[in-house]
Amino acid sequence: MTNREDALNLHSKKPGKISVEPAVKVETKEDLNLVYTPGVAEPCREIAKDSRKAYDYTTKGNMVAVVSDGSAVLGLGDIGPEASMPVMEGKANLMKKFGEVDGFPIVVNAENAKDIIEHTEGIAPTFGAINLEDIKSPRCFEVEKQLKEKLDIPVFHDDQHGTAIVVGAAIRNALDLTERNIEDSKIVVLGAGASGIAVSNFLLNLGAGELLPVDSSGILTTDDENKYKADLAQRTAASEQSGDLSDAMKDADVLIGLSTGGIVSKQMVESMADDSIVFALANPDPEIMPEEAKEAGAEIVATGRSDFPNQVNNSLAFPGIFRGALDARADEINEKMKKAASDVIKNFIEPEKDKIVPETLDKELAMAIAEKVEQTAESR
Amino acid sequence: MTNREDALNLHSKKPGKISVEPAVKVETKEDLNLVYTPGVAEPCREIAKDSRKAYDYTTKGNMVAVVSDGSAVLGLGDIGPEASMPVMEGKANLMKKFGEVDGFPIVVNAENAKDIIEHTEGIAPTFGAINLEDIKSPRCFEVEKQLKEKLDIPVFHDDQHGTAIVVGAAIRNALDLTERNIEDSKIVVLGAGASGIAVSNFLLNLGAGELLPVDSSGILTTDDENKYKADLAQRTAASEQSGDLSDAMKDADVLIGLSTGGIVSKQMVESMADDSIVFALANPDPEIMPEEAKEAGAEIVATGRSDFPNQVNNSLAFPGIFRGALDARADEINEKMKKAASDVIKNFIEPEKDKIVPETLDKELAMAIAEKVEQTAESR
Repeated sequence: MTNREDALNLHSKKPGKISVEPAVKVETKEDLNLVYTPGVAEPCREIAKDSRKAYDYTTKGNMVAVVSDGSAVLGLGDIGPEASMPVMEGKANLMKKFGEVDGFPIVVNAENAKDIIEHTEGIAPTFGAINLEDIKSPRCFEVEKQLKEKLDIPVFHDDQHGTAIVVGAAIRNALDLTERNIEDSKIVVLGAGASGIAVSNFLLNLGAGELLPVDSSGILTTDDENKYKADLAQRTAASEQSGDLSDAMKDADVLIGLSTGGIVSKQMVESMADDSIVFALANPDPEIMPEEAKEAGAEIVATGRSDFPNQVNNSLAFPGIFRGALDARADEINEKMKKAASDVIKNFIEPEKDKIVPETLDKELAMAIAEKVEQTAESR
Repeated sequence: MTNREDALNLHSKKPGKISVEPAVKVETKEDLNLVYTPGVAEPCREIAKDSRKAYDYTTKGNMVAVVSDGSAVLGLGDIGPEASMPVMEGKANLMKKFGEVDGFPIVVNAENAKDIIEHTEGIAPTFGAINLEDIKSPRCFEVEKQLKEKLDIPVFHDDQHGTAIVVGAAIRNALDLTERNIEDSKIVVLGAGASGIAVSNFLLNLGAGELLPVDSSGILTTDDENKYKADLAQRTAASEQSGDLSDAMKDADVLIGLSTGGIVSKQMVESMADDSIVFALANPDPEIMPEEAKEAGAEIVATGRSDFPNQVNNSLAFPGIFRGALDARADEINEKMKKAASDVIKNFIEPEKDKIVPETLDKELAMAIAEKVEQTAESR
């Protein structure tokens, strides 16, 4: 695994992981006259006449804000805006590297959803799209919903939809390899935070026939205080079943863990159907270690980690998705575009049991996703 | 002057004038593990323990937000946030080029001072300093005052203080060359917007003995509805005099125009003292053209334009000021630091009548300012 000192050294070098660079040079007085006063007045006038011209004369059309209040960072929890900066800079770094997107971290002082909504709306004219990141559940749902309504640029909560898109690709390859179809498989989704709820919704859209959402209290109930959980229970097999995680996992074909390290036992996996599929995606510690899951009968195992096969990582999706949405000048990233992205990831490889998703760090994948997402946006 | 097509072509090339680039490379899985999950958790943890560590592990300490609502752009007026983007990108571009500062444009939807204050405060954890820009008067004063109180990072309205610093350098060289001193000279400041008021205040701090502020209604009065104008009138020769611009300019040693093109006549300049000093800084059209001012008896003339000698341009100051303030991790840019910057600009050259300020585009000047500003901050 990663060396602590290496990680700190890398972050302290510049410091930070991004840099704002001049995209046009200023060497002569004539250059200065064009870049700054008086020449700068010309694009200003054009945009004042028609605000869409901002896409022609400024960075807006390629600029994505990576917005967080730092309330749900990785396995670290609510560490606040400053401490979440390294994650946001990391995303901005990868956006340029793989998607040729200008990403910029915006970490926000926020007490509640309203604060994030207001500040993001306030500065939105600067940006061509908004990537919400590491905002705790259920706050994240309210923030995304309201910003989508208020803004005419795409708003995309990557912890929800990026994860759902990649899991959707990986799970379909795993189902194919074990000769199952999504309609007839029993799928347990463990964890009902941002990613658990989004993954469940995405799988339902892909046709999942028997989906059972579970959180730390057991199978979700239709009278849960959290309206997002209650609503999900209503629309799934949870409306007719109750019990704890052990009950849920009996005879399940698939487990998708988006919860906490170590909470799935070998016995639980043994109780699943033969040749089961286990995604233990909690980071940094999976719900069950891959070797244990396999010993207990799992046929295909995935984690969120790079040191095991089948790394389900949302960096596979977001650079290409934003590239495509920006290229289309889309005003949203809708379900069709997400499905298109997931299809590209699924079909990018010839799947094998230890290779159900493409490798990370493949720029060709990002560009293939971008192309399909752009086409899908335009064919709305 | 600048060609309209050249200016539009330059802005549409990328499009825009800045780019967000990776500052650390991601080529291997090991790189990805350090830049993104799981390695990124290490700096997050450090900053969560001590928020000052954000300066060691993120871009915060070198990142300046160039914030505007687009309510007072150049000679263009209230054109709104999108249309002001080219100016903010231009500043960001020059910050890196001359000051090695990461500048980032933030254009804000704002109805009033409160909106700008709230959104800037909301996103402030991202940044090491705030450059306010092109915000109309008197809104800009309220925004700056409140943000300085609320934030523990420097807040600097460049239209006010950048202009004051450069004018303060240029005017002192012009006074020296015409064998005057600031205490005994009659100085008319024409224009009582952000820059006019800030220049007046700065010259008063430099010892100006007879300063007469004038706006489009004539010499300011102590009962002006605008409290900033009334206050300035109270503290200057305007408290004892009244009249229009022609009255004010009689026997004046210095005119500093920060107002509107063409409003100063040859007759007005002829009524000034012998060997007068005329700064006609309105952009793009000066209050009086340099050749006319000289025909009317002005000994030294400056404008804001690059196509005449003595270009008084705030790009001389801001890159170095922010570099110095960031290097010192200063929590403000105070009067001493502004005075230090102005002194460096004044003393950077051997002044001549057609060379009272250094050339723009001189990185050595920015670095000299930075060094002095940093020292001055630390000696508070």
